[in-house]
Amino acid sequence: MNSFNKLHTIGKKAAHLKGVIHLLDWDQETYLPPEGAEPRSEQVALVSSIRHDLITSETYRQTLESFEPDTDDEKACHREWMRDFKHAIALPSSFVEEFAKTTSEAVEVWKEARQKSDFSLFAPALKKVMNLSRQKAEYLGYKETPYDALLDDYEPDTTTSQIEVLFNDLKKEIIPLLKSIKNKTDKKLTGTFGQEEQLSFSRKIAEKMGFSFKSGRLDLTTHPFCTSLHPLDNRITTRVYTEEPISCLMGVIHETGHALYDAGLPIKWFGTPLGEYISMGMQESQSRFWETRIGQSRPFWSGFYKELQTYFPTQLKTISEEEFYNILNRVEPTFVRVESDEVTYPLHVILRFEIEKALINDQLPVEEIPALWNQKMKDYLGITPPNDKLGCLQDVHWSCGHVGYFPTYTLGNMYAAILFNAFKKDHADWESRVSNGELSFINDWQKQAVHQHGRRYRSLPLLEKISNAPFSAKPYTDYLKEKYQNHPRS
Amino acid sequence: MNSFNKLHTIGKKAAHLKGVIHLLDWDQETYLPPEGAEPRSEQVALVSSIRHDLITSETYRQTLESFEPDTDDEKACHREWMRDFKHAIALPSSFVEEFAKTTSEAVEVWKEARQKSDFSLFAPALKKVMNLSRQKAEYLGYKETPYDALLDDYEPDTTTSQIEVLFNDLKKEIIPLLKSIKNKTDKKLTGTFGQEEQLSFSRKIAEKMGFSFKSGRLDLTTHPFCTSLHPLDNRITTRVYTEEPISCLMGVIHETGHALYDAGLPIKWFGTPLGEYISMGMQESQSRFWETRIGQSRPFWSGFYKELQTYFPTQLKTISEEEFYNILNRVEPTFVRVESDEVTYPLHVILRFEIEKALINDQLPVEEIPALWNQKMKDYLGITPPNDKLGCLQDVHWSCGHVGYFPTYTLGNMYAAILFNAFKKDHADWESRVSNGELSFINDWQKQAVHQHGRRYRSLPLLEKISNAPFSAKPYTDYLKEKYQNHPRS
Repeated sequence: MNSFNKLHTIGKKAAHLKGVIHLLDWDQETYLPPEGAEPRSEQVALVSSIRHDLITSETYRQTLESFEPDTDDEKACHREWMRDFKHAIALPSSFVEEFAKTTSEAVEVWKEARQKSDFSLFAPALKKVMNLSRQKAEYLGYKETPYDALLDDYEPDTTTSQIEVLFNDLKKEIIPLLKSIKNKTDKKLTGTFGQEEQLSFSRKIAEKMGFSFKSGRLDLTTHPFCTSLHPLDNRITTRVYTEEPISCLMGVIHETGHALYDAGLPIKWFGTPLGEYISMGMQESQSRFWETRIGQSRPFWSGFYKELQTYFPTQLKTISEEEFYNILNRVEPTFVRVESDEVTYPLHVILRFEIEKALINDQLPVEEIPALWNQKMKDYLGITPPNDKLGCLQDVHWSCGHVGYFPTYTLGNMYAAILFNAFKKDHADWESRVSNGELSFINDWQKQAVHQHGRRYRSLPLLEKISNAPFSAKPYTDYLKEKYQNHPRS
Repeated sequence: MNSFNKLHTIGKKAAHLKGVIHLLDWDQETYLPPEGAEPRSEQVALVSSIRHDLITSETYRQTLESFEPDTDDEKACHREWMRDFKHAIALPSSFVEEFAKTTSEAVEVWKEARQKSDFSLFAPALKKVMNLSRQKAEYLGYKETPYDALLDDYEPDTTTSQIEVLFNDLKKEIIPLLKSIKNKTDKKLTGTFGQEEQLSFSRKIAEKMGFSFKSGRLDLTTHPFCTSLHPLDNRITTRVYTEEPISCLMGVIHETGHALYDAGLPIKWFGTPLGEYISMGMQESQSRFWETRIGQSRPFWSGFYKELQTYFPTQLKTISEEEFYNILNRVEPTFVRVESDEVTYPLHVILRFEIEKALINDQLPVEEIPALWNQKMKDYLGITPPNDKLGCLQDVHWSCGHVGYFPTYTLGNMYAAILFNAFKKDHADWESRVSNGELSFINDWQKQAVHQHGRRYRSLPLLEKISNAPFSAKPYTDYLKEKYQNHPRS
């Protein structure tokens, strides 16, 4: 067996073990009986440590170091395997254990603090997590600032200073845009929208998009998510609010976007970096492309509103297609990120990025978070949270130690804007095709543009290759302005 | 860390890995999308081989061999750990792989042969499985006959000659009993029994028995089964036929019997043999105790028939409690084991035991199975299968290589008879308590009599300790005669 095959064999095992961990996590969110949570955390920790041992073993190191890649494919694999290996050995197991223990306790404290809407209860635990995250950054290494190391974990080779430039560009455009927007309707959806009907319509749309229920599932959870055990086993979840059918459907469209990326990764490269997605940002670009550029578009509802009405004939009788479209695209500053619209969403993210960056770079004491949060909400969105629950205690990320993750939500939207422009160039007739109920050609395009490459390219070089232009925030702000300000919405 | 703690630490990992394999299997039967089957088999093979490496490692061997047990608990653990270790190292991995590959192919061939009802299609594959099973017996070692080695895998320290004596005793009693039985009713259930109502009633009964849905689940599958990921995570399944409510409920009661055993194993011994069940036979004794001695008893239906009628008021309007009891306990020779009644069931098992024993001991060419099967059906049950599908192709066991498993079904019933007598001694008022809807005291009794011991004792010594009498088939045949012949059923 040559070195590549040896590495691929170990890589396949590591990939299957990741699939097993994803099943353990999926089961925990969907079907695990409550008392099974304790053994479950031990199972996850065990399989994770077996996986870690496998990809940091002496055999693996030697094979990797002596590997002389031949083809372009092998060179790409080698580069990414080296990156993963350096990352895996950077953190001592004692640190990984302490990190896991501290964050798992912090999540419990956060839950209580959030419930009581009292940040002071959470502050000591958060301080510990931030200290460990800073330590993590030191272990991982960075060029300019500790936050770089954490960001790199979610979006490889992207730096804090890059994000700062991009996010400042966004603020300059979006804050005034938000002030200028006037909603076209005040109509609201009323009535009860049955769970079965919502799920049935959502499943239909997911299938139209290219999701196969032969190699995937849809289940219900508190928060929608997507996980993949293998390109042939992709599982999405959603939630249903019977007072409106949008959350469920948009959850499904978003998660299907993720799932189609996972399902579109080349199976022959399973167990190598060429069979893996590029980054969290690129993942988010796929889900947001589908959710906002397609699911929230006029052509989509020209194609599907009549069908949605057949599911809810009485509830949607008095709502025209145009009114429905306007309800769906209503812009309004609100306190909670996950419920926010396309225009305010990036401001929520920028606020979090600025705060967590300051925390990691030791420029902000934890105690001052609530005041700074509320100040930024006022500055960016013009509203002030009435309490910490609706303010700085709303997200689970920090308690989990997911520092550096937030920016990828907005990067994803920026990527989606660039991809959408390229897609429109290749498919000038996309509006009429979508209006006719065609969707899977969009997945075909994304497969060819993004999915097929695995981790061969980083996000930015790939996007520059696709768009033939340097990367910037402009396509994204242009899109938002075009849709929400200049474009007649009727 | 002393040797015991070292062994316990490894044992815990091995037990958690078994739990992970059980989740992979459970998911495959319940929710896995069809195309996920291929990666699933690779995941299961990988985790199994990691587990095997762990409990056959040089570190483990050295720790085990240098371990000098102190207490009775440690001595019992040592004895069973040694047994497991010898077993684990007996089979070379190349053999394990070949066995897995051959049986997995044989299952596919069997499915096709069964569908076409043509044993000759299956014969070549079965021959291979039997050859490998014989080889397995040689690897494992035995005193008298190769079949001993296979039997020992499912029911430790039980020999072929013991089973022969027991089964001959059974035949002598049961064949004439069967001929003498006259059913008390020809009434049949009619109407449609809704799935939701069936499941709701079944869940209620499972909870009454002591099953906790905080540490367990009930799902739907083609064939009912029970699996345990940990004493705090026990999962049962059943199937629903809307033409009658008995299959679903009896499936649930049976599987709950298994689950209560798994849930009753002492958590503090998790990862040691004292936290594991004794054998397949003892497992079956728990499920059959609940199913036949309780679920098919008069007191149970005095307690619950009225409630069942509230679920199906129109469907059960014209069926009295006594008639329902008689329908439930109807005895009639049929071709299919899994659908058979209490009296004919052991004859189905004995027939299989006699055939597989002859196959393993090289006294029967595979080609002669159909003729011998049909002959024995005629001799024991008085009926002749019209085809192989309803005859020797009905069970999956042989294609899976589960040779030596069948006898444990009947051993379980024998054990249940002995346990039931002991239980009645301790709870002379059981009939009135069950009639009053009390069930969980039965689980309390079984926990104390059986579950709490883990693998401290083998089945027979434990039963002799409980009953204070030598083990025999008599309590079982006495029970059958009492219930089906001598006892006035009205």
